[in-house]
Amino acid sequence: MEQLLRVQNFCVSRDGFGAGEHQSLARPFGDADPGELFAWAGATASWPNRTDPGGSRGLDDYFTRDFAHHIGAEIMGRNKFGPQRGPWADDWRGWWGEEPPFHTPVFVLTHHTRPSFTLSDTTFHFVDADPATVLDRAREAAQGKDVRLGGGATTVREFLDADLVDTLHVAVAPVEFGSGTRLWESPDELLDRFHLDVVPSPSGVTHHLFWRR
Amino acid sequence: MEQLLRVQNFCVSRDGFGAGEHQSLARPFGDADPGELFAWAGATASWPNRTDPGGSRGLDDYFTRDFAHHIGAEIMGRNKFGPQRGPWADDWRGWWGEEPPFHTPVFVLTHHTRPSFTLSDTTFHFVDADPATVLDRAREAAQGKDVRLGGGATTVREFLDADLVDTLHVAVAPVEFGSGTRLWESPDELLDRFHLDVVPSPSGVTHHLFWRR
Repeated sequence: MEQLLRVQNFCVSRDGFGAGEHQSLARPFGDADPGELFAWAGATASWPNRTDPGGSRGLDDYFTRDFAHHIGAEIMGRNKFGPQRGPWADDWRGWWGEEPPFHTPVFVLTHHTRPSFTLSDTTFHFVDADPATVLDRAREAAQGKDVRLGGGATTVREFLDADLVDTLHVAVAPVEFGSGTRLWESPDELLDRFHLDVVPSPSGVTHHLFWRR
Repeated sequence: MEQLLRVQNFCVSRDGFGAGEHQSLARPFGDADPGELFAWAGATASWPNRTDPGGSRGLDDYFTRDFAHHIGAEIMGRNKFGPQRGPWADDWRGWWGEEPPFHTPVFVLTHHTRPSFTLSDTTFHFVDADPATVLDRAREAAQGKDVRLGGGATTVREFLDADLVDTLHVAVAPVEFGSGTRLWESPDELLDRFHLDVVPSPSGVTHHLFWRR
């Protein structure tokens, strides 16, 4: 059975940035306000961090509830995992506390490897390898399911440049950042290799759905 | 945990019909051509009856792959189950052969009960009861998951009239039938009780997503 590499619910600004500059412990998305990127998702009934019973069950909810559907592993860049650069100076275990939202093996791309560890039902592995090799490892860990490419933007670009991505869902939020970590200048850059459905949502974001030609 | 009653991927013509008149063994949708209703779904990668490896992975595919997501039982009307009326004259076991596409318990509404039977991982039960009682039975069988209300249009109307439906996804196809089994005169009939996202798809159908106010 085919195992896809899927980008799910990746959010960028209208000018193409997935995060701002100056990432830090206090500001995982740097100068950008993640609330402006994720408001559409936070308003849905299926948002995992929802604390009240409300929430919309319209178009946007299909995307939040599809996030983990048939996903058996995630690949993420080191800058999604944490704000440090260079060798690990502490026992940083991610932004997500004792119950990370992944519930699968997670492969963190880094030139500085360290031992794997498990938090609840998520195990983090640290891999210093090229995208194709990491994807092979993630596919094996996914046990027949698909692999999610979790970002950030730089990591998505690396896997796009290696032509390893099968589908992308990118939610373009109605905000401009001006600088930061860039996914694209324009979604049109991908049209030579991907079909694209552009789906405006009543919430204000525009969902971009790409799949291989 | 809340167990929703969900209508998933129910297809109607632009003039509101889920099927034509004169249903028969040879024509499960009567005078209407089901190909005109379901073409959008059949073109997607996740369509269960797909025989070739192609298929789109854009907007429409979210709906076909969500069909069974977190669903633990289905309720359907007798006219979805088969073309007969009145007492069962034969051992009719549904349109779907030895591998029905439900994979859960299915509760068939009928005034003519008969013993339950199992085909592959689908068990059909035959229930002569009001909508609320059938829903109670389906919820128990669904073991914490949601219940799908499978149709046809008359059955969906009965459950709407009893105010038991939590969400509806209705795909309106670009075709007119003129007569048949009607879901609505207009989707606006539901706006007193439901929010609505109207989402046109590049395939030509318009997805209507309702959830309770």
